Amino acid sequence: MQVYLNGSYLDHKEAAVSVSDRGFVFGDGIYEVTRVVNGRFFKEKEHLERLEEGLAGLKINLDETRKKQIPEISRELLKRNGHTEGEAAVYLQITRGSAWPRTHTFPDPEVPPTLYLATSPFTPHTKLHETGVDAITISDVRWARCYLKTVNLLPNTLAKQQAEDAGVNSAVMIRDGMVTESPNANIFGVKDGALYTYPATNYILNGITRRTVLEIAEERGIPVHYTPVSEQELFELDELFFSGTTTDIQPVTVLDGKNIGTGKPGPVVRQIQEGYRERLYGE
Amino acid sequence: MQVYLNGSYLDHKEAAVSVSDRGFVFGDGIYEVTRVVNGRFFKEKEHLERLEEGLAGLKINLDETRKKQIPEISRELLKRNGHTEGEAAVYLQITRGSAWPRTHTFPDPEVPPTLYLATSPFTPHTKLHETGVDAITISDVRWARCYLKTVNLLPNTLAKQQAEDAGVNSAVMIRDGMVTESPNANIFGVKDGALYTYPATNYILNGITRRTVLEIAEERGIPVHYTPVSEQELFELDELFFSGTTTDIQPVTVLDGKNIGTGKPGPVVRQIQEGYRERLYGE
Repeated sequence: MQVYLNGSYLDHKEAAVSVSDRGFVFGDGIYEVTRVVNGRFFKEKEHLERLEEGLAGLKINLDETRKKQIPEISRELLKRNGHTEGEAAVYLQITRGSAWPRTHTFPDPEVPPTLYLATSPFTPHTKLHETGVDAITISDVRWARCYLKTVNLLPNTLAKQQAEDAGVNSAVMIRDGMVTESPNANIFGVKDGALYTYPATNYILNGITRRTVLEIAEERGIPVHYTPVSEQELFELDELFFSGTTTDIQPVTVLDGKNIGTGKPGPVVRQIQEGYRERLYGE
Repeated sequence: MQVYLNGSYLDHKEAAVSVSDRGFVFGDGIYEVTRVVNGRFFKEKEHLERLEEGLAGLKINLDETRKKQIPEISRELLKRNGHTEGEAAVYLQITRGSAWPRTHTFPDPEVPPTLYLATSPFTPHTKLHETGVDAITISDVRWARCYLKTVNLLPNTLAKQQAEDAGVNSAVMIRDGMVTESPNANIFGVKDGALYTYPATNYILNGITRRTVLEIAEERGIPVHYTPVSEQELFELDELFFSGTTTDIQPVTVLDGKNIGTGKPGPVVRQIQEGYRERLYGE
C-alpha cells in the first residue's frame, strides 16, 4: 500500500518518521479519518475545517501551500492504491515535526510539521448496524480537551482493548456520572422519541457524524436534547447508539450484559441510519 | 549522536520508526529519563522498576531478554557518544510496536515492541537552583492516569509552552482546586517547616526525585503531609519547589507575578537541595 509522507509517495513498509518526531515522543499531533465512496469524499469540507481547528488548538503552523495540497494528495493516493472504486477511508495525520534534542516546549526555530496520509479499503460494519452491538460501561479517563482530535489516544486504545477483552464490541465511557463517548464514536440515547446527547463541550469530540445525526434529526422532526445521559438513566433508555466516521450509526442493544430497551435496534436509530445512508451513499 | 533502535546503534538523524508505529499514531508507549554522572547511573533500579510498572499498566509485553539488555545498551550508548564523563541523561522509550492497518485494539497477533534509547550531555540548571524560578498557575487538563509515565504528553508540552509564552520558567498545574504537578516535575509546598505534597494517587506521577525528596525529609526530620496544597493556600506558603529528574530541586519563588514567601529560596528547599546533591553527586 502506498502512503504519502512529507512530499513523497512510498510503500507503507518503507514510510518512517524520525525518532525525534514529536508525534512519536509526545503524541504532539492531530488526525482525521474521512470516508470515500467510489472516489466521492463524504463531508470532506467538514473534516478539513476540523483539521484547521485542530492545528489552531495545538498551534501547529502548517503552511498554506501544503494545507491546500491535502485534497489533491488524498485523491492521488486513492488512485495509486486502487481505492477509487468501492469504499475507502483516508487517514491524515499532522505532527509538530521533528526536533532534536527533545524538549517539551515547541521547537525554536520552528520545524516543518510532519504530514502523513494513508488510504485503506473500507468495509462498513453492515451486519452490526443491522443487529446492534454489545458494550460495557467504563470510566472516561481522558484529558479535559477532548474536543481536539489529537493522537494522544492511549486512553481510547486502552478502553477499546478493555471492551475487546470483555468480549464485547465497544465501551460507553462515563465521566462524572455522565455518558460522554465511546473510545472512537459519539453516543446518543433515545427516550420517548427524542435524542439525548452530551453537549459539545471540552469533554467530547464534536464528531462530524454526530453533527450529521443532528441534521437528520432536524430534518425528520426528531427532538434533540443536548443533555448528557446519566449512568443511572442508561437502562431506562429506549435506545442507545454510537455515531462515528468508521462506526457509522451503530445501535447498542446490550450494555453490561443487560438489554437497552427491547434489546433490538429501535425505530429512531433506524430512521437515523436511513438518513445517514442517504447522505453517505446518495440513496 | 548515536541512538539505539530495535537492535541497532545508529546516528540519530537516521533512526526512524514506521508510520504505523503505535507510538506515532496513538502515543501508545512509555518512557523514562535517567541521570548519569561520570558514568554512574542515579536511581537506575527505581527507573527500571517504574518501567516495569509502565509496561504492566499499558500491557506491553517486552520480552525478558530485551528488557535485561536495557542497562547494557544504556552503557554502550553512553560510551559511543562520549557521555561517560561529566553529566548525561539517558532517554528510553518503549511503544507497543508497529502494526498495519491501524486499529485501536492491540495488535493481534502481538508485534514486537519498539525499543528506543538516546543519551545526551546534561547541564544541570545550577543557576536556577540558586536563584529560584517563576511560574504561572494553569489548569491541569491531563487524563486520570497520571501515575503512568506515558508518551501521551500533549497536555504537558502545551502547558510548558504556555509558561514559555508567558515568559516564565514553568507552570503549577491545578486540578479540582488542588496543586498537582508542573508539566514535567512534582511539586512540594512548605509551611511552618513541613512539606506538603499531593498524595501518590492516579492524579500525579510518583516521581523518583519526589521519592528521594521524601527520603531526605525523613532523614532530616522534616515533617511531610501527603495533603495537596489548594489554589487558595499557594500564596500563604513559606516555600514552593519542583522536583524532577532533569529539574532536580528547583525553588519556585514567584508565581503569577507574586512572591512565594520572601520571594527567595527558603531554608527548607536548601536542605532538600543539599541532601539531593549528596545523593546525586556523592558529595
